[in-house]
Amino acid sequence: MFLKNCWYVAGWDHELIDGKLLSRMLLNENVLLYRGESGKVVAMNDRCPHRGALLSQGRLEGDAVRCMYHGIKFDGAGKCVQIPGQDLIPPKMRVRTYPVHEAGHLVWIWMGDPAKANVSEIVDFPYLRDPAWKGLPGYLHYDANYVLDNLSDLAHLAFVHTKTLGGSEEYAYVTKPAVIEKLERGYRLERWHMNIDPPPFHKKVISNKYEKVDRRNRVNMFIPGIFYMETIFAPAGQGAEKGVAVPGTREYRNCQFMTPETDRTTHFFWAYLNNFEGDDTTISRSLLDSLLEGFMEDKAIIEHQQQTLDDDPGFEKQMLAIIADAPLVHFRRTLGKLIDAEQAPAGTAIAN
Amino acid sequence: MFLKNCWYVAGWDHELIDGKLLSRMLLNENVLLYRGESGKVVAMNDRCPHRGALLSQGRLEGDAVRCMYHGIKFDGAGKCVQIPGQDLIPPKMRVRTYPVHEAGHLVWIWMGDPAKANVSEIVDFPYLRDPAWKGLPGYLHYDANYVLDNLSDLAHLAFVHTKTLGGSEEYAYVTKPAVIEKLERGYRLERWHMNIDPPPFHKKVISNKYEKVDRRNRVNMFIPGIFYMETIFAPAGQGAEKGVAVPGTREYRNCQFMTPETDRTTHFFWAYLNNFEGDDTTISRSLLDSLLEGFMEDKAIIEHQQQTLDDDPGFEKQMLAIIADAPLVHFRRTLGKLIDAEQAPAGTAIAN
Amino acid sequence: MFLKNCWYVAGWDHELIDGKLLSRMLLNENVLLYRGESGKVVAMNDRCPHRGALLSQGRLEGDAVRCMYHGIKFDGAGKCVQIPGQDLIPPKMRVRTYPVHEAGHLVWIWMGDPAKANVSEIVDFPYLRDPAWKGLPGYLHYDANYVLDNLSDLAHLAFVHTKTLGGSEEYAYVTKPAVIEKLERGYRLERWHMNIDPPPFHKKVISNKYEKVDRRNRVNMFIPGIFYMETIFAPAGQGAEKGVAVPGTREYRNCQFMTPETDRTTHFFWAYLNNFEGDDTTISRSLLDSLLEGFMEDKAIIEHQQQTLDDDPGFEKQMLAIIADAPLVHFRRTLGKLIDAEQAPAGTAIAN
Repeated sequence: MFLKNCWYVAGWDHELIDGKLLSRMLLNENVLLYRGESGKVVAMNDRCPHRGALLSQGRLEGDAVRCMYHGIKFDGAGKCVQIPGQDLIPPKMRVRTYPVHEAGHLVWIWMGDPAKANVSEIVDFPYLRDPAWKGLPGYLHYDANYVLDNLSDLAHLAFVHTKTLGGSEEYAYVTKPAVIEKLERGYRLERWHMNIDPPPFHKKVISNKYEKVDRRNRVNMFIPGIFYMETIFAPAGQGAEKGVAVPGTREYRNCQFMTPETDRTTHFFWAYLNNFEGDDTTISRSLLDSLLEGFMEDKAIIEHQQQTLDDDPGFEKQMLAIIADAPLVHFRRTLGKLIDAEQAPAGTAIAN
Repeated sequence: MFLKNCWYVAGWDHELIDGKLLSRMLLNENVLLYRGESGKVVAMNDRCPHRGALLSQGRLEGDAVRCMYHGIKFDGAGKCVQIPGQDLIPPKMRVRTYPVHEAGHLVWIWMGDPAKANVSEIVDFPYLRDPAWKGLPGYLHYDANYVLDNLSDLAHLAFVHTKTLGGSEEYAYVTKPAVIEKLERGYRLERWHMNIDPPPFHKKVISNKYEKVDRRNRVNMFIPGIFYMETIFAPAGQGAEKGVAVPGTREYRNCQFMTPETDRTTHFFWAYLNNFEGDDTTISRSLLDSLLEGFMEDKAIIEHQQQTLDDDPGFEKQMLAIIADAPLVHFRRTLGKLIDAEQAPAGTAIAN
Repeated sequence: MFLKNCWYVAGWDHELIDGKLLSRMLLNENVLLYRGESGKVVAMNDRCPHRGALLSQGRLEGDAVRCMYHGIKFDGAGKCVQIPGQDLIPPKMRVRTYPVHEAGHLVWIWMGDPAKANVSEIVDFPYLRDPAWKGLPGYLHYDANYVLDNLSDLAHLAFVHTKTLGGSEEYAYVTKPAVIEKLERGYRLERWHMNIDPPPFHKKVISNKYEKVDRRNRVNMFIPGIFYMETIFAPAGQGAEKGVAVPGTREYRNCQFMTPETDRTTHFFWAYLNNFEGDDTTISRSLLDSLLEGFMEDKAIIEHQQQTLDDDPGFEKQMLAIIADAPLVHFRRTLGKLIDAEQAPAGTAIAN
């Protein structure tokens, strides 16, 4: 069960170069994505309505695509414009298309009721199009449902990512209680870790590797699976936590997008940006590697979690919460209510 | 749901040489096929009735087979003739056998009620045993239901097989309307393509490669999945379509047999014969390769089609027909009626 | 459906050296097995009750284990003793543990009601801890239910193991009728094969390879899947079958343990011991190899049998018994009654 009436990330813009007919399953639907010769991005159901052949195995002709089974051609709005050997085109011969929107190297898609698609509802992440912030686009595939929890769960940093993104197990014991602000469609969270060694991923890209730092992660998480984080590492003990702009502070901007492929698999798009690499492109490359290393640690855990739930679906309701789970619980409850409302027959009142 | 009371091709005769115990699933049943020492071909259920071991892992003894789990032996009629260490043989200890018939290098099998098996119902293809016609036996396995459509669908030649069996996309636009004659258990169809370059598979085996030709495909398709085609390539513009016997014409005879393995997999046997190779056996070999290449193009498409239907079984009823689908529609309807009649309880009237 | 209130073999003791956190599915439950620093063996459910991570991917700390997802720690009794960043530990935060018992290099586990676990019910096999008997521990995994029959079925020796453990097909025809003594929880069986060549596995480890022998297999089979066999090979014709202690007799002691992993997969532990190798350790190694070779022959057959039953579950009730199946039929009936009794609501009378 997915929330349909919202924007999801369907891909990075660089995936649609050179007339590529990209087939990608999104929310259990096979979607064909391509950039037509006019430059417009098209998303349509990847199935010819005649005999079900993959349109992504077809041929791009201008902004249209031709099925290469019997040669039937559809324009960028999904309308059939040619059936070889037949003059009359039945009006029902058409393919569903989906609203799309490009912004900041991302291709967003709306899988629900097209009449409700409103581009202004996309939560902007301006750093992706700001030349001051550098970074490489990332992608991973998870064999797990897209709301499996560790995006909303800074506590796991300590034990899962000790040697990559976290840095020490102490993080789980001593970090200041998180600020948690519940939002209508997500939450805001802040967590400080004071006077620590730089964690491995950060240490690799800085010169003063043995200076203690104060670390702050500020997270904004939004429905359906959008995670924006602003991280700073300030030289320790100089008041960064009180708002002092400490010289030598390093900053990162991180966006992560979880888009369901199926009920139990997920597309994961992300970028981890810095504003200090200057001309040294090895910093972006190192951060890409480090984040990938960390996400592979997550992948192992959440894919096993999915397997556990597949084997014993009843376990989901038996899981025992700990205090650190609060943001996650809020996020799941909020998402659940929205899905229930969307699924409810028109006119039904949803209890809050 | 298969039609049971009809003849299917179970294999080529060369598959049963040297006492081979061939295990082949046909219509969801594991069948053991072998040629006994007397020369007789036997088809029996490939499961020992004692503890279920594979008889095809057993040992051929004359016309009998011995299970190599506990040594129980069955004759070619499926009757148990020995249980080691036990004198009395219970009459129930026997294996089901199936009527078989050999003709023209083919082994035909009847999977339905043995009392209804009538060899005269096999539709003959005399070219397979005529020394004037040369060609090599072919086999492919499809991960798709055996009535998936492209056998009945000459229109797909243009786009799927452009570079192999078809030759040009024009075929879909300009060929004369097909003659379609509906038969009680199939159809007859004819299609001409005038004044064209020889398609690639034909061009490879002729000397005058740049002479335009008129192509005629004449198809006979029969229940349950038997396709016979007579093809001519005549030098263009000399009246072949009016029945003129044009010198330099090349002819082919093609038989194809689709036998269901399971509900979603198919055995595909075929041969593509010519009468002009003389002593040049490279022509048969080239045609075998060319046809295989073309059928691999089909395989990719129909296996995806099967996947599409597996993922969304409702799509089968939503498919939108085009005019070129007419023979296919007739064939499916005819087959469907026969299956319904066979499945109906005795005494039930079937509406036509 | 498994018998729960009984002892199963969970593993060999050597599998738990060096602090290994061994994850093993037993009776459809993921079990974590380890030896704590105190030397005590612990078996607990391999799933953190917080978010389901594998405890076997955690860290051994003394006799306790720490989940490496969020750092929650459980002692050897399954009690939660630490949640990082949280003072109060909810009493429900605990993991199920299972009674275990070590004896003769085996780790036994009780998967049923812990209150009913009674170590004295374990059927002893003293040879495993007797230094006079030598042999190496074996393990195989079967993709088949653990009661598939060939343990209880000496008849299959003749045809399946002709060239390994059996020696000749004659075994099935001429061996003396087996002594079969039905026991409350199993059976005892004895079978003699007189005046034969030594079978291949035995021939490899003796010097007088061409002397005829009398072979006796004496089997004790117990619920749930415990097989103990005492085998002798005596020089032929000197009265071994009448109890004469014939000089030159060679003896073996063989234990086999079938433990269900899932409904259709099995852990198989075994050892084949001899008392004559002296300092020649190649004899144990040769016997390990020979038995493995024989069990691989079984594996091929019973895995296919499982496949046959998966494809056609109704076949289980249609199988036709032969006389040699008697012990097997008794064992299955006895086990079935115990399972029914265990599954029955308290107070229900079970018909015998």
